[in-house]
Amino acid sequence: MDPDFSRLDAHLDSLGVDAYAIDAASTDSNQRYLSGFDAPDPFFTCYTPEELSVLVSGLEYGRARTESRADRIERPVAYDKRELVDAYGPREASHRVAAAFLSAGGVESVAVPERFPVGTADGLREQGIEVVVDTDDVLVDIRAVKTPPELDHVRAAQRANEAAMAAAEGLIERSTIGADGQLLVDGETLTSERVKEAIEITLLKHGCGLDETIVACGERAADPHDRGSGPLYATEPIIVDIFPRNKSTKYHADMTRTFCKGEPDETLAEWYDLTERALAAALDAVEPGNTGEDVHAAACAVYEDAGLPTLRADPSTETGFIHSTGHGVGLDVHERPRLSTDGGDLVAGQVITVEPGLYDPAVGGVRIEDIVIVTDDGYENITEYPIELVVD
Amino acid sequence: MDPDFSRLDAHLDSLGVDAYAIDAASTDSNQRYLSGFDAPDPFFTCYTPEELSVLVSGLEYGRARTESRADRIERPVAYDKRELVDAYGPREASHRVAAAFLSAGGVESVAVPERFPVGTADGLREQGIEVVVDTDDVLVDIRAVKTPPELDHVRAAQRANEAAMAAAEGLIERSTIGADGQLLVDGETLTSERVKEAIEITLLKHGCGLDETIVACGERAADPHDRGSGPLYATEPIIVDIFPRNKSTKYHADMTRTFCKGEPDETLAEWYDLTERALAAALDAVEPGNTGEDVHAAACAVYEDAGLPTLRADPSTETGFIHSTGHGVGLDVHERPRLSTDGGDLVAGQVITVEPGLYDPAVGGVRIEDIVIVTDDGYENITEYPIELVVD
Repeated sequence: MDPDFSRLDAHLDSLGVDAYAIDAASTDSNQRYLSGFDAPDPFFTCYTPEELSVLVSGLEYGRARTESRADRIERPVAYDKRELVDAYGPREASHRVAAAFLSAGGVESVAVPERFPVGTADGLREQGIEVVVDTDDVLVDIRAVKTPPELDHVRAAQRANEAAMAAAEGLIERSTIGADGQLLVDGETLTSERVKEAIEITLLKHGCGLDETIVACGERAADPHDRGSGPLYATEPIIVDIFPRNKSTKYHADMTRTFCKGEPDETLAEWYDLTERALAAALDAVEPGNTGEDVHAAACAVYEDAGLPTLRADPSTETGFIHSTGHGVGLDVHERPRLSTDGGDLVAGQVITVEPGLYDPAVGGVRIEDIVIVTDDGYENITEYPIELVVD
Repeated sequence: MDPDFSRLDAHLDSLGVDAYAIDAASTDSNQRYLSGFDAPDPFFTCYTPEELSVLVSGLEYGRARTESRADRIERPVAYDKRELVDAYGPREASHRVAAAFLSAGGVESVAVPERFPVGTADGLREQGIEVVVDTDDVLVDIRAVKTPPELDHVRAAQRANEAAMAAAEGLIERSTIGADGQLLVDGETLTSERVKEAIEITLLKHGCGLDETIVACGERAADPHDRGSGPLYATEPIIVDIFPRNKSTKYHADMTRTFCKGEPDETLAEWYDLTERALAAALDAVEPGNTGEDVHAAACAVYEDAGLPTLRADPSTETGFIHSTGHGVGLDVHERPRLSTDGGDLVAGQVITVEPGLYDPAVGGVRIEDIVIVTDDGYENITEYPIELVVD
């Protein structure tokens, strides 16, 4: 099932260009999305309301014919690449081939993403193709609203995510508390690194990969960007934030839980309770017609009413609720919409995280993150993992 | 230890520009290399013979000061980003900030890589900065020659690679042969998928990751780009090609072995023997003063003398030796130099793979790949894994 590109048609119209063009490998999510093709090396995709066409190397030609969503699949050889290389050298030749490929589709002007390569843009311009930078990044907005198959991909990644979270919590559960409060498993100190390894191995076995995951304890947990390392300790918060990508579908999931082995102190327990309430309040605000800013405001209000600092109330604060409430999730782990002070309209079909949290080196950090789908009348929470601080 | 950028100085001189600029995340190897900084989001790096400077978000500022190799670390706030956003909107504001950051370094003209984002390039041009596309991609050539610390990073990744290869071979060794010739381990069919999982888990435990690995059996092995899937069979070639990346250093290794459980048929044994000789001949040709083309020629000659087709002798052949002899390895798994008909000079300090192979659906595929360092008087083979076809 193809995404709805009608919005792209209207956008091309408003920009007064014939087509939308991308020159990138499918590691670029716009390329992957528009072409529907997964290739490790850069290739050229051209979208017009009439036709989607790709220009791929001879090596990828056969696969593109069966796997891409393009109506027209072309190879450089069809545009006399070799002769052009002899005449103009490899770079101008590839620009001439791309220009000829566009002309063959009746395209004289293209909109391109901001990160379209300047080498290709200048080369196409030299060949008489008008190149306009799409400063709205319209594809990113179109990508924000998922098709049913895309939603299934995110659900599948989230199931893997939950298995990985269970592996992490299982290690903390199995651990005993050493003399100095360090957690021990099988007589060895339980470290962030060891928990991360258990997470990654579980994800691997579920067809997912990730480069990074967060297992941060105590003071390390007070920095939302700290990946965490070293021993884990009892009675301190342990933030576990996992954002895997399915290796075949390339879609992500994202979830965070905060655990405490043994009894948390009063402040930590209070913060956790507050954060659960902030999560509930934010989720209540998730519905079409509301904005990402509304959802963020609902979370901030819970903390502010409790007298805790938020970035919204005090842009200079370094403790309290010091990040946005969430973000879209899809081919990129962070994509639109934003759930922050500049967050726009929520639309049914968007996949978003809702992840309030509190941070202070004196206490540590607390974050609870669910991933949900915006529906016509609210949201569907696709997170099937309990919310519980204390692990015994 | 910093790389030798004197070549970049000369190149800037020849291009007649003040500086070299990159706008990318450190997933871009040129960015990672030039800045020495690892950040997930795009940032701006400017190199002049006098100074290396980076422009990073406030979020990355502290880390950039301690981790990047830049002499000057700046934040948008230092260039009144907020006021500029109010006056010109976020995009023009960021271009004005980048232009001011360049001017502060006395830079009025920059060379950029071909894949530098056109949005930034056009924006800088509007601010009066001359932007020249570096069609030589000089940084890629500089990156090809490694510093001693970089060589150690590749060696470390190769040790992990060998542990993973041993895990793969171990499964084939442990396997028994089922009635239909399928390999069985613990009563279950041994599949490509299962071997890949063992490889990836071993790499994880050695601090390495990879998105893909090749475990291809029989006919699947006859396509050098087939990742392989499904059951593995006795007496057929099983190509195992592993190219991990160390998660902290980001440097790669690359090695291929071909295994056969039980007795190979005569052709397979012959092909393996020939490929071992092609590897030896190619390695003999690895030394400064020779070119990548010389090394490729040495491998091709062994096959051609045996009456087997090569792409060099017959560009249209679909069987025989149908790929290049090797490539550089570093921050990218495929980088310069190329060991192919267009391969240039070999230089001490380059890290290259040497990987001759033969392919034919009727036989399967054979490939043997070592990774070596070009030295002043030849090469150092940093591959410490036996070359043996038959696994009993």
